[in-house]
Amino acid sequence: MSAPDYGHAFALWRDHAPQWRAYTHHDFVEGLRQGTLPKDNFLHYLRQDYVFLIHFSRAWALAAVKAGNLSEMRAASGTVHALVHHEMPLHLDICAREGIDAAALEATVEAPANLAYTRYVLEAGYSGDFLDLMAALAPCVLGYGEIGARLAGSGGPYSEWIETYGGAEYQGLCRDVGALIDDALVYRLGAQWHSLPCAAHLAQRFATATALEVGFWDMGLAGP
Amino acid sequence: MSAPDYGHAFALWRDHAPQWRAYTHHDFVEGLRQGTLPKDNFLHYLRQDYVFLIHFSRAWALAAVKAGNLSEMRAASGTVHALVHHEMPLHLDICAREGIDAAALEATVEAPANLAYTRYVLEAGYSGDFLDLMAALAPCVLGYGEIGARLAGSGGPYSEWIETYGGAEYQGLCRDVGALIDDALVYRLGAQWHSLPCAAHLAQRFATATALEVGFWDMGLAGP
Amino acid sequence: MSAPDYGHAFALWRDHAPQWRAYTHHDFVEGLRQGTLPKDNFLHYLRQDYVFLIHFSRAWALAAVKAGNLSEMRAASGTVHALVHHEMPLHLDICAREGIDAAALEATVEAPANLAYTRYVLEAGYSGDFLDLMAALAPCVLGYGEIGARLAGSGGPYSEWIETYGGAEYQGLCRDVGALIDDALVYRLGAQWHSLPCAAHLAQRFATATALEVGFWDMGLAGP
Amino acid sequence: MSAPDYGHAFALWRDHAPQWRAYTHHDFVEGLRQGTLPKDNFLHYLRQDYVFLIHFSRAWALAAVKAGNLSEMRAASGTVHALVHHEMPLHLDICAREGIDAAALEATVEAPANLAYTRYVLEAGYSGDFLDLMAALAPCVLGYGEIGARLAGSGGPYSEWIETYGGAEYQGLCRDVGALIDDALVYRLGAQWHSLPCAAHLAQRFATATALEVGFWDMGLAGP
Repeated sequence: MSAPDYGHAFALWRDHAPQWRAYTHHDFVEGLRQGTLPKDNFLHYLRQDYVFLIHFSRAWALAAVKAGNLSEMRAASGTVHALVHHEMPLHLDICAREGIDAAALEATVEAPANLAYTRYVLEAGYSGDFLDLMAALAPCVLGYGEIGARLAGSGGPYSEWIETYGGAEYQGLCRDVGALIDDALVYRLGAQWHSLPCAAHLAQRFATATALEVGFWDMGLAGP
Repeated sequence: MSAPDYGHAFALWRDHAPQWRAYTHHDFVEGLRQGTLPKDNFLHYLRQDYVFLIHFSRAWALAAVKAGNLSEMRAASGTVHALVHHEMPLHLDICAREGIDAAALEATVEAPANLAYTRYVLEAGYSGDFLDLMAALAPCVLGYGEIGARLAGSGGPYSEWIETYGGAEYQGLCRDVGALIDDALVYRLGAQWHSLPCAAHLAQRFATATALEVGFWDMGLAGP
Repeated sequence: MSAPDYGHAFALWRDHAPQWRAYTHHDFVEGLRQGTLPKDNFLHYLRQDYVFLIHFSRAWALAAVKAGNLSEMRAASGTVHALVHHEMPLHLDICAREGIDAAALEATVEAPANLAYTRYVLEAGYSGDFLDLMAALAPCVLGYGEIGARLAGSGGPYSEWIETYGGAEYQGLCRDVGALIDDALVYRLGAQWHSLPCAAHLAQRFATATALEVGFWDMGLAGP
Repeated sequence: MSAPDYGHAFALWRDHAPQWRAYTHHDFVEGLRQGTLPKDNFLHYLRQDYVFLIHFSRAWALAAVKAGNLSEMRAASGTVHALVHHEMPLHLDICAREGIDAAALEATVEAPANLAYTRYVLEAGYSGDFLDLMAALAPCVLGYGEIGARLAGSGGPYSEWIETYGGAEYQGLCRDVGALIDDALVYRLGAQWHSLPCAAHLAQRFATATALEVGFWDMGLAGP
């Protein structure tokens, strides 16, 4: 099965990120697929992912601040809204079902791997421009899409997680984000953007964020 | 008639802003109330206000980035969403009815008074923290509420504009933003925040933004 | 006499800034050249320029934060140091000789034209990247160089001001900043950067900052 | 021997940072003191520290941008200058003597622990205000001072490193930075700042940065 198509930039960046396979085929991911991941590790991951979502939402809000036109602003602000008003409540629900209430979730101590990743993304956005932010955000958004597409239909105890990211809605979002990135690159740098010096810098942003995703799975696998 | 109550900080800041009355009782505002403002001036104002809204939305998105807790983040991201997905389309509609299409609106050249105001607010947010941003955003949000409440029922050619800001929905939003600001101050600085040195700095932020609102009405009155 | 050569980007941007001549041949500048500018206007300008220098130094510090390599970082941090530890004390000296002491200078109320300009530059730097900041900073640094070079040798009551900017040291600094900008563009965007879509955006940054320089001179001419 | 006195805030923050002793008495530090740290680990640390210095200088430049008065601006810009124009060249010299030339140093791949720390500090500065930045910068500046003061006179192969931080010049800098922080707190929050809600937030900034320093020593000990 071929990987889903999320656009031109993603295809280029993924090919130049040495740890892309280590990220998308991580033992944590295989544990989700085969249903062998211990529940405690999954819950540890879920708690950290909630903290991650807060900073991830802040990063998308920063994208709205740094948008270069109305279409980028709408896409970014729509994503923030979906994350804060739908994704985070959903996370609260799932955790509640597992016996982790809102107070416990809020009290989660951020793991170093979590902190490293989110601050890297936010700093990239603050110090760079909209493109820096997109390149740093892409591995999370689109990597989860690629993992979800590959694992879809695996069944097992983690099928709800799998189908969230493998489902049509999230796959559509990935194609939209891929198009947002491609359009943003052409809008600023022209159709030949990949041959400019800054293309290597953006690919490096993507590769670093990918390496930090590996660290996030490692943290999940190491457990609480 | 007494002014509406938008909370504690607003009451303090308004009293220390030398130009508050010049802003809220500006000749432009009186022209709206009495219906004597020339249509061209109003349309000039509407066009500039559309550009203003873009940067104003960016400033609220920055508030989401700088939020100190989930409640602040939800309030800020909800405001961005309302501005980008409701307020801006509404503006497009009103302008369209007046014969200004989307392309003309997008092509509006930002007036210096507009640029000065929006960049002041954004820079306050970037260089300061969430409170700096709130103090710089408050004169616009809450001043329009105070003006709307005072002008409500005036009728005349500008009654649609007047009732938008004087209506229950916008007045509710003003009370919410006033509460957001009061809560944010107490959350960081405690109940006695107004006696701290930084209180003067925040009041100054509010006063400067108020002065820049006067400049915005001046620009509207000067016309295209 | 031809204008001095401060590099490639400057030459392009200057040609596309509609108000470049209005800025560099402003009546305030002609008043300095002919010695006809009233002393009060000059002192008003000097006081505002002191406030300007503070924010201008902050903008160069932001350039150090956003530098893409060591050479850019050294250039930016060297400029901040020169501004804060040499230029600002020099300003204090000149004002002191004119009877404006440090306390009076610190108490200067920022004029709207001053605020508009400095916040525009800082916000361009925060929201954009190093290049946005350079394009917004260039009209001040290099415009003063061009004015100084043209006015050098005019004599008269403002000859100290004129020779500061027309002198070899400042002219060398302008060539260095021009080279910094050219190098920064090629480093990120390649030698053909001027044919990319973002080139128009950068030229617009330069043009807007030039228009804000005109506003600054207008403010000086209007007087205290 | 009692720890050196770097002011009031530092004393409070250190007492509330659970990992302060783990940081200042880390095995890496003991290895420096006893001369038992393998040379390869020290060189690995030096190379990473060079990358760290670049981002650390950027963070101090951000402090200059966010300064609230001239005295803070002078202190921050003086520190940037010292770091970029003295500390970094010194680092280049030391590394050169050990056979690591400038090109090798520039090519250093940033370790995850290094990235986590520096981005945390920069993001704290961008998202917060001057005080957030100071609280996040303090553990590095003042912790090295405390370590240097304790190890001074130990002799051995790492005596040059030890005496750099234990020497009178660096100790004076620590007292200056401690005073800068105390003054900045009182300037904004008053003499009773430690009883305000935001005091816990600042102490947490310091504690997190301290934990990230532990991660930095761990990385040094783990070796290349």
